[in-house]
Amino acid sequence: MPYIKIEVTREGVTREQKQKLIKGVTDLMTHVLNKDPQLTHVVIQEVELDDWGFAGEQVSVLREKGITADKK
Amino acid sequence: MPYIKIEVTREGVTREQKQKLIKGVTDLMTHVLNKDPQLTHVVIQEVELDDWGFAGEQVSVLREKGITADKK
Amino acid sequence: MPYIKIEVTREGVTREQKQKLIKGVTDLMTHVLNKDPQLTHVVIQEVELDDWGFAGEQVSVLREKGITADKK
Amino acid sequence: MPYIKIEVTREGVTREQKQKLIKGVTDLMTHVLNKDPQLTHVVIQEVELDDWGFAGEQVSVLREKGITADKK
Amino acid sequence: MPYIKIEVTREGVTREQKQKLIKGVTDLMTHVLNKDPQLTHVVIQEVELDDWGFAGEQVSVLREKGITADKK
Amino acid sequence: MPYIKIEVTREGVTREQKQKLIKGVTDLMTHVLNKDPQLTHVVIQEVELDDWGFAGEQVSVLREKGITADKK
Repeated sequence: MPYIKIEVTREGVTREQKQKLIKGVTDLMTHVLNKDPQLTHVVIQEVELDDWGFAGEQVSVLREKGITADKK
Repeated sequence: MPYIKIEVTREGVTREQKQKLIKGVTDLMTHVLNKDPQLTHVVIQEVELDDWGFAGEQVSVLREKGITADKK
Repeated sequence: MPYIKIEVTREGVTREQKQKLIKGVTDLMTHVLNKDPQLTHVVIQEVELDDWGFAGEQVSVLREKGITADKK
Repeated sequence: MPYIKIEVTREGVTREQKQKLIKGVTDLMTHVLNKDPQLTHVVIQEVELDDWGFAGEQVSVLREKGITADKK
Repeated sequence: MPYIKIEVTREGVTREQKQKLIKGVTDLMTHVLNKDPQLTHVVIQEVELDDWGFAGEQVSVLREKGITADKK
Repeated sequence: MPYIKIEVTREGVTREQKQKLIKGVTDLMTHVLNKDPQLTHVVIQEVELDDWGFAGEQVSVLREKGITADKK
């Protein structure tokens, strides 16, 4: 009985990427814990940039300064 | 001090249905646990069909295949 | 596809009461939204009295003052 | 490693108020627990008035009756 | 800025399995969304069998009946 | 109607520190949003070090390596 909530900033995540996240997390629960996919629910929640704070600043402000969440 | 979060797929839940969910859950907390309704908060969160995954698939895809969440 | 999280203070909730909460919430989702119980998950999370704050005070402190969450 | 989720009813919270909430909560984690702001994430979730229930009623109904959440 | 919460029933998940879940989810966020692992937090929450309800029943009751969450 | 959930790693947070977090967050909701403290609930959830992942690693492993979450 796994339930997984993924929260990410709303920055153009595509339908295809969401499908990959859902498939990837569900497979992970099966491979690591042998969980039945029929009992695995995944919810993706996109969060507006004004609504996510990091290091005391809104992400919208960080983005204006050119600071991204991209892997270097 | 109960707090209840209800997450459902966004598929035409009406204002009246939401009111029934809120009333029903609040009454349940009173009947089972004797909780004061003045201390009971209920939050309903509707989730887009692309954002809910079940059995490794987006619910939007399941719906296109004719698979519903309806009680049989 | 409903998922419901119930958060209550840890104050002697019994196994039987938890079962009633789970059954009651699941039935409510079926009656109001026609949801299949096989797709309904309910999670109860009990919270220590030191970890729940109301009106700026720990519930453990409120209880010491004789303030309960009981329905009047 | 703190993560803080703030849920409030959607009633005209401004961008500036959100920034104050993010800054205030992050500072609090540093002052009370000595946490590094670089490890502190804050997410604000605004909830529609139809989706928040208090005392068994939708907040949208309470507001129509003139009942607010304002400090007296 | 991803935050992921994994909720599973408490049924002997090992420290090594938890590490695999954390690594797997973090890698997935990088591969699918190009997210910096330094901004990815994962929280695992194990839930007692009495506290998780499925299809209106406590998982502890389902397990006594021999019903598992194992992949077939 | 604010509800705030604070998740932190379980590393010796004292009862007094929890009280300061609850008071501080509640006051912040009043100062920034003019919210009635009687409608503000705060829940603190401590997470075991094996259950929190950052940058793909369990915090318990990071701590063994001498990496803390302390403000520099």
